[in-house]
Amino acid sequence: METTVEKSALEIARAAYRPKMPKALCGPLTIVEGEPTESADNQEEIKELFPNTYGMPYVHFEPSEGGKHSASLNVGVILSGGQAPGGHNVISGLFDGIKSLNPKNRLYGFILGPAGLIEHNYIELTGNIIDEYRNTGGFDIIGSGRTKLEKKEQFDKGLEILQALDIKALVIIGGDDSNTNACVLAEYYKSIGADVQVIGCPKTIDGDLKNSEIEASFGFDTATKVYSEVIGNIMRDCNSAKKYWHFVKLMGRSASHVTLECALQTHPNVTLLGEEVEAKNQTLDDIVTYIAEVVTDRANLGMNYGVVLVPEGLIEFIPAIKRLIAELNDMLAKNQADFDLVAADKKIDYVLGHLSDENAALFKSLPLSVSRQLALERDPHGNVQVSLIETEQLLAEMVKAKLDQWKKDGIYTGKFATQHHFFGYEGRCAAPSNWDADYCYSLGYNAAMLISAGKTGYMSSIKNTFRPADEWIAGGIPITMMMNMEKRNGQMKPVIKKALVELTGKPYKFFVRHRTEWSRNTSFVYPGPIQYFGPAEVCDRPTATLTLEQSDKL
Amino acid sequence: METTVEKSALEIARAAYRPKMPKALCGPLTIVEGEPTESADNQEEIKELFPNTYGMPYVHFEPSEGGKHSASLNVGVILSGGQAPGGHNVISGLFDGIKSLNPKNRLYGFILGPAGLIEHNYIELTGNIIDEYRNTGGFDIIGSGRTKLEKKEQFDKGLEILQALDIKALVIIGGDDSNTNACVLAEYYKSIGADVQVIGCPKTIDGDLKNSEIEASFGFDTATKVYSEVIGNIMRDCNSAKKYWHFVKLMGRSASHVTLECALQTHPNVTLLGEEVEAKNQTLDDIVTYIAEVVTDRANLGMNYGVVLVPEGLIEFIPAIKRLIAELNDMLAKNQADFDLVAADKKIDYVLGHLSDENAALFKSLPLSVSRQLALERDPHGNVQVSLIETEQLLAEMVKAKLDQWKKDGIYTGKFATQHHFFGYEGRCAAPSNWDADYCYSLGYNAAMLISAGKTGYMSSIKNTFRPADEWIAGGIPITMMMNMEKRNGQMKPVIKKALVELTGKPYKFFVRHRTEWSRNTSFVYPGPIQYFGPAEVCDRPTATLTLEQSDKL
Repeated sequence: METTVEKSALEIARAAYRPKMPKALCGPLTIVEGEPTESADNQEEIKELFPNTYGMPYVHFEPSEGGKHSASLNVGVILSGGQAPGGHNVISGLFDGIKSLNPKNRLYGFILGPAGLIEHNYIELTGNIIDEYRNTGGFDIIGSGRTKLEKKEQFDKGLEILQALDIKALVIIGGDDSNTNACVLAEYYKSIGADVQVIGCPKTIDGDLKNSEIEASFGFDTATKVYSEVIGNIMRDCNSAKKYWHFVKLMGRSASHVTLECALQTHPNVTLLGEEVEAKNQTLDDIVTYIAEVVTDRANLGMNYGVVLVPEGLIEFIPAIKRLIAELNDMLAKNQADFDLVAADKKIDYVLGHLSDENAALFKSLPLSVSRQLALERDPHGNVQVSLIETEQLLAEMVKAKLDQWKKDGIYTGKFATQHHFFGYEGRCAAPSNWDADYCYSLGYNAAMLISAGKTGYMSSIKNTFRPADEWIAGGIPITMMMNMEKRNGQMKPVIKKALVELTGKPYKFFVRHRTEWSRNTSFVYPGPIQYFGPAEVCDRPTATLTLEQSDKL
Repeated sequence: METTVEKSALEIARAAYRPKMPKALCGPLTIVEGEPTESADNQEEIKELFPNTYGMPYVHFEPSEGGKHSASLNVGVILSGGQAPGGHNVISGLFDGIKSLNPKNRLYGFILGPAGLIEHNYIELTGNIIDEYRNTGGFDIIGSGRTKLEKKEQFDKGLEILQALDIKALVIIGGDDSNTNACVLAEYYKSIGADVQVIGCPKTIDGDLKNSEIEASFGFDTATKVYSEVIGNIMRDCNSAKKYWHFVKLMGRSASHVTLECALQTHPNVTLLGEEVEAKNQTLDDIVTYIAEVVTDRANLGMNYGVVLVPEGLIEFIPAIKRLIAELNDMLAKNQADFDLVAADKKIDYVLGHLSDENAALFKSLPLSVSRQLALERDPHGNVQVSLIETEQLLAEMVKAKLDQWKKDGIYTGKFATQHHFFGYEGRCAAPSNWDADYCYSLGYNAAMLISAGKTGYMSSIKNTFRPADEWIAGGIPITMMMNMEKRNGQMKPVIKKALVELTGKPYKFFVRHRTEWSRNTSFVYPGPIQYFGPAEVCDRPTATLTLEQSDKL
């Protein structure tokens, strides 16, 4: 990997930051084993699929006497999937952790994700390289990739290079799917007696890899702070110019945690959450009507401006849209040959003529740019590309159409001008906040201790994270404990259960208690940019989600 | 104005920041008058138009003995035009400045821009209100607006409320147009003996209000740092995932200073500057070919990713596009009735049939979405809406088309996938950087001293800003000194000359020396977010533009 030629002043100053760690990791330690565990659901199936790694105990570390040196060993590390702030700190923590065990230990990084393991593409991560990346954002130290590690041939191919490099443990830093695959790999290597441990680390800015034992996935803290910074700046502009409704789409396809967290930090006038839309069986028209009502209420109070937050995956949560997409995919698959012969400007009519009445009506109600896209653009599998729909623009257009109607009907008399924004790539590679820098470094260092304790099929776990770092609890969770069976591409598969926004959870309930007040007043909060050097109440503040979820532990 | 219910931790901590000021403003001072001045051009015309405010001397302040108390007076303030970070600090500096002269002095803020003066919509800005807004972003303390203050009736209507409130001086915080109008107003009030002084303050994130006496317009420092933060984050993502070309459009319609500054801070692979495109008489195809060549070069080096920066106003700088737009506007105006009768799907053909060959060929070369927009969407004056063209998408599409062709020709063998972004509203209301907080507060405080010295038709000026704040020079520039005559809406008008990126200037030359290296290597720099509390080399760094322009003064 090429390195950056010039470092920014902040990177240079920030390199000196020493991440805070749980007390147990700061010196000699001992492992404490708990009771055997069960999987989240489908215990029989999961047990059968993971005979060697099922039922292992939760473990944690406690400070102890004596040294922690051990025989030397080599470790490999992989960054899997989308970038999240703090990945470099996991790796530097892992490096420092294994060096604390034995200075002869070596760390190898596989290049551009799991593909690097399969294709034997790697570098040794030496102290000089590690020092270039401490407390920085990005995954550029070894790159990341989306190759899925799930086939026996891949595992065998990977084993060749692991054995060639004498690697005894592999750390996979990834989201729910990557950790599922890490567990499958751990099970496989154990089943064939390959003598390679596999440890997972919970990463995703989406915040959907979370459960009773994993309080947060890393990167969520930093990414939501960057998004809240720019949302706050837009809000301040909105409240100064007083002439636009800003529609802001945020990353998060399967879960709306990012949107909820940003709402809790900034208090927008409208916040849409996919999980709520699904639970309430809302239609697109319900959503559009709700926004139009807030716009009308504010217009009546003299405020023709506001901010709307929308999660990227919203459209896929709407039950009626799901049904439309499903029928579209089926219908187009059945009539592929016919449809290909239809002239471009007749395709929409063709689609309308071949859908059920309910779905045809919904399809017809969509703005032309969206129906055109749904009818014309398909992915390599022939499926409709829902992800290409620009939800924030779709909503802005549909709200405008509704308000135009209400204006004719004399219900609405305001002005409605819009701006739209999408924030995703802006936050995934930000330099980690203090919280993420500490959490990630601890996760990595802790992974080294799990390796030293001989564990495999475990996820590195740092708990009690709402308390000061020296009270954090370092340990490991058997990955099978988080699994259940789900249908993927038509087949039942063991997977880690995705954590969606819980409608019984404290963050959501707090939001519901305040949203009417936030919609009618202008209660915007302007969090500003992440600070690395200031007072603790500015620099070390955890997310609102974590604060609300964990506050009873104070 | 309603106030925000909840303040962020950063706002609370930042409220305590004490802006640094030029030494002359820190105690008793005396005014030093220089030689009479001349306007930038068209001296005879400007002199005739401004008989009472032409030729006044440049003035500056120096520390002196004794007190600076004076008889009490009331002052009004207006925020004009687009938001820029630091507006609240100009107002708090002005407030503290007039209070230092006489604690009985009062400050009135006119609401939502110049319209507040004309419509007699104002509040008194008391110490309690001012304290809520120190060192914060936004213009929400009194709001801003784009009403142009240029007619006698407006001036007379404004005078009524100024006299009613016993206001002796009005401070107008705005860009080049607003300061031009401030000067016209100063001239008018002086000509009728109205006894109201008018002082301007140089504001615009675009950086185009700048000359030998005004080293920077306020807000440029902060806004470009916010844009560079998110561009740096996108670059780090780009360099980690290694699969996208990111096209980033930046605010700045008439000048490309913002884009140049961000390029100097982050080192993108391609940077387009409107001024260069115009000077070199480049065509759209020249630009597309240049980007495609950089993409091809990088692909040959194994890098199918990169970052392109584009100024918002690029398209309007391309001479051939200017000619197309001009002919389109003329042709559509002439054939309005005919054109309205043409069916929607035939309008493009109609346009093609009525343009000159050269312009028809260019029109035909544009992506369908753009030609459709140019043919169908018009502003209230019937003009083509160039500003609606999404330049970053247009370029990405056209580069893709060119690379597809080159692939067929065997010239290009890489992959080309794109993401696009537009940053504008994200930076205009950020909390001011230390530099902007100091500069703005000093501009406001200094405006109070100019008022006390009886000046009118002056712009508040703080010079030597590349040196530490106590060496800054506080003074005033006669606004007429910056003027020349330009055609506006068909008429010759006296206006402040807009500062474009100079192709003989040091910032541009530095960029030219490095751009090839930045295009072929991945030399990205990741500046990170603005820091308010850290080491001086992180927190007090001026822009690269100012550093390069002023570095000979070190």
